[in-house]
Amino acid sequence: MLTSKIQAYRDFLKDNVRQQVDFSQTDQSLGVPPPPLEKPYDPEATRFELVAPENWTTIPAVDLFSAIQRRKSHRRFRHASLTLEELSFLLWTTQGIRASRNRGFAFRTVPSAGCRHALETYLCVLNVEELEQGIYRYLPVEHRLVLEFQEEQLAEKITAATLGQRFTGEAAATFVWTTIPYRMEWRYDIAAHKVIALDAGHVCQNLYLACEAIGAGTCAIAAYDQQKIDQLLRVDGEDEFAIYLAAVGKV
Amino acid sequence: MLTSKIQAYRDFLKDNVRQQVDFSQTDQSLGVPPPPLEKPYDPEATRFELVAPENWTTIPAVDLFSAIQRRKSHRRFRHASLTLEELSFLLWTTQGIRASRNRGFAFRTVPSAGCRHALETYLCVLNVEELEQGIYRYLPVEHRLVLEFQEEQLAEKITAATLGQRFTGEAAATFVWTTIPYRMEWRYDIAAHKVIALDAGHVCQNLYLACEAIGAGTCAIAAYDQQKIDQLLRVDGEDEFAIYLAAVGKV
Repeated sequence: MLTSKIQAYRDFLKDNVRQQVDFSQTDQSLGVPPPPLEKPYDPEATRFELVAPENWTTIPAVDLFSAIQRRKSHRRFRHASLTLEELSFLLWTTQGIRASRNRGFAFRTVPSAGCRHALETYLCVLNVEELEQGIYRYLPVEHRLVLEFQEEQLAEKITAATLGQRFTGEAAATFVWTTIPYRMEWRYDIAAHKVIALDAGHVCQNLYLACEAIGAGTCAIAAYDQQKIDQLLRVDGEDEFAIYLAAVGKV
Repeated sequence: MLTSKIQAYRDFLKDNVRQQVDFSQTDQSLGVPPPPLEKPYDPEATRFELVAPENWTTIPAVDLFSAIQRRKSHRRFRHASLTLEELSFLLWTTQGIRASRNRGFAFRTVPSAGCRHALETYLCVLNVEELEQGIYRYLPVEHRLVLEFQEEQLAEKITAATLGQRFTGEAAATFVWTTIPYRMEWRYDIAAHKVIALDAGHVCQNLYLACEAIGAGTCAIAAYDQQKIDQLLRVDGEDEFAIYLAAVGKV
């Protein structure tokens, strides 16, 4: 006999919700302009150029089959830094823009329901060449990083925010994907949320595979302290909040 | 001002749920044996050997970067069949077992929370060499297909079950991922369901990339008629139900 709670959570994974949405009344249908492709940033903030795909010189080719076959979760990392080019590769493969249509739409290296791409990529940087420790965010439109802020005792704080999983404090960088759910709700209303989780899965899989090319490894993290990680990123926990993480380091 | 419905759906994506779970009382902690790695099949049913990775002779190598760069959603397919070897490749890259530990655990080509892998892969086969049209299911442990049943007017039915998206009726095969949620609930109780969606995203991303190797294309489908697709697969819609689909064809 299922508890009603289990039932409710299972229902979230079903697509019955679509029948409850009046798609003629979504913000998109009502003519509300689409929210921006990426979260705006403080124009005074320090930004860092990333290396564009055509300028990569140190990223080895790797066969897709080998990458898939060798992929596994890594929770032990060497004490070695990632280069900015390696980080550029990981960011581009997970959330890069491969073709733009107009201000409302851009096609990325991963699929997203309705091309809405309701994710932002934060990095808890601990050991990346040319970057000070701190919280950064990827700007896919510009293929740049913005320094959100620096933070004392960052390794300890990311470890605490991941419920004491120590490898996040030992990683070169931990990817933290937040969602800005309105970006998907604008089109899908309450049918938005399951597909946001599916999208985060697409992104994380590319991270796993891309790590195989550069002698790095990752481990996805779905168990975390929601409040602590949102506070660490300084997002409000309502209109933007963390949904998935992955620690990356050399292996 | 958020509606309470939007709020509830957003909450599903947060990890606050974990604080409500008494992990000392999950079935795993109580010593209940783990559910089987794959759904049992009728021993009388017809099964088909798939081609094992070491025996693939027609799968071209493709660079990971190229596969990621070229990936896009395809909704138009050539009227060409997939070979059984190509289908073997797509099934192995999405849900294949790369290492087994014991009867309770097996590592696959994609990550899954707690190694639970609460998904089953059904195929609506319309145009695959050596296979009659019908509904099949992948058996990862044996790397075989089992014929679930044949069905009249299958192309029309899969199209109807995907809300009239005609490319499912024109595809060589449509992957339909169901979940058996108890496989994840056994370990995580009500913290099981978001991670099931994340896992389905991992799987679908590998399908997109693998298609690039074999001149095929796919389009993921999150908008479908829950009842119709569950009826088409003959699953009960409660202990097993469809959560994500992807149509595959030559392009």
